[in-house]
Amino acid sequence: MAQFRTQHGEPKALLFDVFGTVVDWRASVIAELTSFGKARGLEADWVGFADDWRGLYQPSMEEVRTGQRPFTVLDNLHRESLAKLLRKYDLPQIRENEVEQLVTVWHRLKPWPDVIDGLYRLKRRFIIGTLSNGNIGLMVRLAKHAGLPWDVILGAEIAGDYKPKADVYIRSARALNLDERECMLVAAHNDDLRAAAAVGLQTGFVARPTEYGPNQVRDTHATQAWDIVTDSFSGLADLLNCPRY
Amino acid sequence: MAQFRTQHGEPKALLFDVFGTVVDWRASVIAELTSFGKARGLEADWVGFADDWRGLYQPSMEEVRTGQRPFTVLDNLHRESLAKLLRKYDLPQIRENEVEQLVTVWHRLKPWPDVIDGLYRLKRRFIIGTLSNGNIGLMVRLAKHAGLPWDVILGAEIAGDYKPKADVYIRSARALNLDERECMLVAAHNDDLRAAAAVGLQTGFVARPTEYGPNQVRDTHATQAWDIVTDSFSGLADLLNCPRY
Repeated sequence: MAQFRTQHGEPKALLFDVFGTVVDWRASVIAELTSFGKARGLEADWVGFADDWRGLYQPSMEEVRTGQRPFTVLDNLHRESLAKLLRKYDLPQIRENEVEQLVTVWHRLKPWPDVIDGLYRLKRRFIIGTLSNGNIGLMVRLAKHAGLPWDVILGAEIAGDYKPKADVYIRSARALNLDERECMLVAAHNDDLRAAAAVGLQTGFVARPTEYGPNQVRDTHATQAWDIVTDSFSGLADLLNCPRY
Repeated sequence: MAQFRTQHGEPKALLFDVFGTVVDWRASVIAELTSFGKARGLEADWVGFADDWRGLYQPSMEEVRTGQRPFTVLDNLHRESLAKLLRKYDLPQIRENEVEQLVTVWHRLKPWPDVIDGLYRLKRRFIIGTLSNGNIGLMVRLAKHAGLPWDVILGAEIAGDYKPKADVYIRSARALNLDERECMLVAAHNDDLRAAAAVGLQTGFVARPTEYGPNQVRDTHATQAWDIVTDSFSGLADLLNCPRY
C-alpha cells in the first residue's frame, strides 16, 4: 500500500465535518419526518420541508458569525428554524413535545455505509474527532445513535463561533495540543476545506454526490488539489495507510 | 438486580473524575520515572518526586481559581511544576526533549483493573464522559493509551476554570443539554462530590484507598451519604442496572 505523504508529513488528528460528510442528513430527516407525518395523519411536502430546514442552516449561523447575536448552539437554531417552517407549512397542530421530538431528528441521522468501518480503521492510527457546527450535546447523541467512535468532540461550541470562521479550526487544533498542520479536516464540502487550508490544516475531500439529493450540483467533486481526494472513508483509510482488519 | 433510584431518577450522563478515580496516577508515574532514571543512569527518590509533583497540583490550579493568572491548561501547569522539581531534586542534566517526555507521563497512566469492563457496561445505558481538571489534549491521549471509551471530554478546559469551582460542573452538564440533576459525578474524592452536589449533580463515590499509596488517610471511605457508594466500576455498573455481557 502506498504511503501517503504531504509536505507536512502525516497528520496526528483527523477532524471531521459531520453533516453530509459522515451522515446522510437529508435521507434521514426526510424518512423521520415522513414517518412522523404518517403516524400523526399530517399531510405535507416533507422533502421540501427537510430541504427548507437545511436551507435555513447557513442564514441562522450567519447571525452569530457576524456578531448580530451571541453564540447560540445549533440545537437552538434548529428549533427556531423549525418554528418558522411549521408556520410556512401550516402545521399549527404539532404539539410542544412533538416539536422537541422533531428538533432532535438531527441527533438520529444515519451514517453513510462506509463510515463505521473506516472510522474504526482510522482510530487505530489517529486521533479522530468532530469539527462540526453541531453542538456537543447534539454530536454526542448522534455518535451514540450511529455508533461513531469519536475520541473527542470539537468544533463550533469549543470556539464559540461557526465554521468557516478561522477560529473554529484553530481552536479545535489547539485543544488537542496540536499545530494546525498536524490536523487534517475531512469534509465533503470544498468551502469548508478552503477555510481550513487557509489557516494551515491539511485537507481530505470525501465526495458525497447525493448529499443534497439526486440532482446535486455543488460539491460533486474536488474543486482544488486537496491533500487527499477520495469517495469513502474506506478510501481515506487506505490512503492513510490504515490496515483492514 | 435491584434498580437504583435517587430522588431525581436515573441520571442520563455519568461524568468521571479521572486522576485517582479512573487511573492509578501514582503507581504509573513512579513506574515510568523509575524506568526513565534507570535508562539514563540517574539516581533519585522517584517516589518522593512523584508525590511532590502531585503535591504541586492543587497550588498550581489555585492561581487560576483565584484569578491570579488566566486559565492555563494542566499540561502547562505540569511542565512548570516539573521544572521546580528538577531543581529541587538536582537533576539539571535532563534535556529539553526528556522534559517533554516526562510531562507527558500524565498521558500514559494505567486504569484501575475494574475500569475498562465497567465503562463498557455503563456506556451502553448512559452518556459517559470526563469531568476532570485535565485538558482536552491530555484526556484524549490518556483515553487512547488506556483504552477508555469516553463519549465526550468535558471538565476544566470547557469551563475555563478548575474544579471544585461550581462553573466546571455546571458548564459540563449544560454542554450535554442536561440539567445538573440529570448528571452524576463519579469520583474517589469526597470534596469533589461535595462541590458537585452543591450545584445539583447526583453523586457516586468509588473508593480508591491506595490512590496515595499504602498509608493513605484521606478519602478511604465516603464521608457523606452519596447517592451511590461503591469500591469499583463493576459495582457502579451493578448498582446502575447495567447487565454483564
